[in-house]
Amino acid sequence: MNKLSEADKYYIAGFLDGDGCINAQIVKRPDCRLQFQIRVYISFYQKTKHHWFLLWLQKKCQYGAIRKRNDGMSEYTITGIDPVHNILKELEPMIRIKKTQLKLVLRIIKELPKTKDPQTFITLCESVDRFEQLNYSKKRKIRSDTVRSTLAN
Amino acid sequence: MNKLSEADKYYIAGFLDGDGCINAQIVKRPDCRLQFQIRVYISFYQKTKHHWFLLWLQKKCQYGAIRKRNDGMSEYTITGIDPVHNILKELEPMIRIKKTQLKLVLRIIKELPKTKDPQTFITLCESVDRFEQLNYSKKRKIRSDTVRSTLAN
Repeated sequence: MNKLSEADKYYIAGFLDGDGCINAQIVKRPDCRLQFQIRVYISFYQKTKHHWFLLWLQKKCQYGAIRKRNDGMSEYTITGIDPVHNILKELEPMIRIKKTQLKLVLRIIKELPKTKDPQTFITLCESVDRFEQLNYSKKRKIRSDTVRSTLAN
Repeated sequence: MNKLSEADKYYIAGFLDGDGCINAQIVKRPDCRLQFQIRVYISFYQKTKHHWFLLWLQKKCQYGAIRKRNDGMSEYTITGIDPVHNILKELEPMIRIKKTQLKLVLRIIKELPKTKDPQTFITLCESVDRFEQLNYSKKRKIRSDTVRSTLAN
């Protein structure tokens, strides 16, 4: 990956602090041993009128996918351990408002390979729960409780 | 005014593109000869939880005022011809999404001293009307029409 220029890093960090999202969520993976997976991602939203801007951002970041939603918005999402890790490490010194989310995602990425057994995985899922408050997202379907009760059965 | 560093300019431009507002509006000024005035401003909103961030931004920009609203939000507004002009000139090369608004405010600022008579003032007010669409703001109380009909009487 080509590194972002200093100018791009500052601009993108400012944009991410203003209108982006650094997040983690628990998703169902019935085919996985622990039946759930932790998904980390960085996302940006813009009116589809500004789709060109997300294309520019994607070209800079060199990761992720853009989709046009059917509500007039476009969404650019970078997901996957390595892409999210690499982008966040580059933006880390510049991010101001979303520093807590950034550090928490980096910690989750670091801990993920160690979660071989249900208990350590559930503990990490509890960290993921924190994003509900950090990002004011109230639509979480799966919390660590769900994972705990599923894995206990 | 101390100039913003390059790093600060890029970060603030990114933040402004993401979550700020570059705007102009027509306000009533019964004590003024033309009874209306054009107000230009740059504003930023954050949950009051992040009030500290707006204080940082204000320290950097060296202009403007912050107020805590009673809905849990804080608002930082830079208004006045010179402050808005100076900040926008500094951010002009870095701004991407809000370039149209930036150029329009700078043009309004340039034209303002020439609006001595009602007709040129009304023409400039028509430029201000454009912000309604540019910023998706539907709460405009005073449009160029209002100015035109008032000054015609």
